[in-house]
Parts: sequence; C-alpha cells; structure tokens
Amino acid sequence: MNFASARLQQQLHFIVEIDALKHVLRQTLLMDRSRRENDAEHSWHLAVMAIVLAEYAEPEVNLLRVLKMVLIHDLVEIDAGDTFCYDAQATLDQAEREQSAADRLFGLLPPDLNIELRSLWDEFETKATPDACFAAALDRLQPVLHNYYTEGGTWKKADITVEQVRRRVAPILKASPLLAQFVENLIQDALVQGFIRPEA
Amino acid sequence: MNFASARLQQQLHFIVEIDALKHVLRQTLLMDRSRRENDAEHSWHLAVMAIVLAEYAEPEVNLLRVLKMVLIHDLVEIDAGDTFCYDAQATLDQAEREQSAADRLFGLLPPDLNIELRSLWDEFETKATPDACFAAALDRLQPVLHNYYTEGGTWKKADITVEQVRRRVAPILKASPLLAQFVENLIQDALVQGFIRPEA
Repeated sequence: MNFASARLQQQLHFIVEIDALKHVLRQTLLMDRSRRENDAEHSWHLAVMAIVLAEYAEPEVNLLRVLKMVLIHDLVEIDAGDTFCYDAQATLDQAEREQSAADRLFGLLPPDLNIELRSLWDEFETKATPDACFAAALDRLQPVLHNYYTEGGTWKKADITVEQVRRRVAPILKASPLLAQFVENLIQDALVQGFIRPEA
Repeated sequence: MNFASARLQQQLHFIVEIDALKHVLRQTLLMDRSRRENDAEHSWHLAVMAIVLAEYAEPEVNLLRVLKMVLIHDLVEIDAGDTFCYDAQATLDQAEREQSAADRLFGLLPPDLNIELRSLWDEFETKATPDACFAAALDRLQPVLHNYYTEGGTWKKADITVEQVRRRVAPILKASPLLAQFVENLIQDALVQGFIRPEA
C-alpha cells in the first residue's frame, strides 16, 4: 500500500497482520458451549473486564496501561500458537517460540511503537509490576468464569484437579484479595457440583 | 452466583452476559476471507488500532476514553443485532432498538458503572466530541481495510458505489485529515482495481 507515508504504511501493515489473531483458537468454550473462543475475542473480553473491575485493582494501577497489555498480550500466539496452560510438554519451549513471535510482530511497527508495545508485553510476561499483576489476574479469572458457566468446560475435558486450578489462579491473589476470595468460593462450589476433580 | 458481594455479582453478571457479543456477526469478512467477523473481534481490532494510530488524533483526544468507547460501542447489538450500514430499511428503527438494548445491558451494572458506560456509548453515538470523532473514525476505517484487502468484500457483494463509500467514511475527515487522505487514496486505488463500482 504505497499511498501512505512510510510510517503509516508500517502501522497499517501491523493492523492488517494482526487480523490473524481471530483465527487462534483457545481451549476455552464460549458461555453457550457452541464453539471454542479465539484470542481476539478473549482479549476484547479481558479489556472490558479491566474497565468493569478496575476498582478491585491496587490504587496505583494505571487502567490505560492495563488495557494496552491485555489487548496485545496474546498477539505472539499468531506465530507461536495457543499453548494449553495445563500441557506441561507444550509449555517447555513456549517462551522461546513467543519471543521470536514478538520480535517479528512488534518489529512490523515503527521503532518507537515497537519499543512501547514490546516492553508492555515483556512487562505482562514477567508480571513484576502492579499493572501486569492486574492484567494477569484478569487473564486467569476469565477462563474460570467460562469453565464454571459451562459446567466444567476445559477442567472436565482435560481432567484437571482442584489443586491444578488453585495453582493456575494463584496470581489473582497478588492483584486483588477480593477477586481471589471470590474465585476460591467459586472453586469450592465447582467442586461440590462436580465441575472439577477433587485431589486424589 | 451468590458467593460474591451484591456489587461484584452485578459486575460478573454483565461480564458473563456480554460473551454473547462473540456471536453477533458483521457483514465484514476476515482478511483471509474464510468467514465473517464478529463484533467482539471487531471491537478488539478497533482498540488496537486506537493504540497504534493515536498520533493521528487531535491533540486533546484522551486515549483511555477512546478505548472504553470502542470496546463497548457494539454491545447493544447483542439485543439489537448488527445493522448493515448500507441497508436503508434496517437503519430506520435502529436507534430505537439500540436504545432499548443499552437500557437493558448497561442496566445490569451497578448504577455508577451504568452511568459511566452508558454516557460513553451515548457520546460515541452522537459523535460530538473529539474522543467520539476519533473512535467513530476508527470504526469507519477498519472495514475499509477489510474490504480493500479482500478485493472488494462487502462493497462488491452489496454492489456499493464509490459515492456511498465516500459518504460512509466522511467522519474520518473530521477526526484526522491525514487518515482521511489515506482512505481517499485507497478508494481511488480500489476503483482502479474494480473493488468498488464507479458512480453511474
């Protein structure tokens, strides 16, 4: 597309390229169980959750930065694919595959935007700041809601135990004790209802 | 879900309910033409575009408010359905259907969040502020990119003329002369390539 400035061309190239996120399927089922969710839908859902649940974050959390993080956090899966969080084998080389993907995808952007979005993504991955902790908590909370409302969803399909779920949602406690308490209540109810397998 | 505070229950009810946006199909094809795009994917794409193209907005534009607007702008279509912008008949009662949908959907939220998101949606609909103008421009620009890269897409399918496209993208000029110039260049190229029907 040579009828825009070189800078705008790079930005548009990135925008066109990331359309592919709409094809990356996650394990999570939609609430009506009709099909699996894709990464673009998931990222949108996290962003609206960030807006609606912002009050449960630490006071220093910057909502704009959290929104940017959740909107771009899965872009690397365009190249690296979705890695099922309970698949120990697949997670072995996940970091390497995702770093290469980040190099290529954010590298399509002009250098300043590449640096901005890449460092937001790095921050999300390392989960070391309050903004990244809140973004990560939303990323753990959303599939819990989907699995609960689909009466077990991925938990049942992959025969996940309650301790695996508890380890998976642990980052929520760091971001928001109140949301973590809600998730623990939900897990206990899911156990009673048979949506999660009890520990052996 | 009675294991959360009344307020958190309302927030979660809203979050679960809006999963349905992933089922609302638009006319637009994905870039690879494999299927039509849904509203959740579209809203995510606009949000990333807002981040990447923010520099083309007027200096007073507030990116956080723009992101909130584009993320929620299509929620009313959960009840009201997607109205094809070139279907004059369907647009007749669109406003009424969408107002009822906004009453119900934002009404699921606690009153303060209902007021905040409803007024952001009203602002987006009236397009009277710089934030709403920029959000609306992105909403007009994104399908143009999809139609161009699918060699005509919806333009060809619905036999749209170049003047109809020009009227549709007019709001982009108000938000960003530079993006509007790019779109005009793209339209001229689409005409040459036969992706849009010339005026009779």
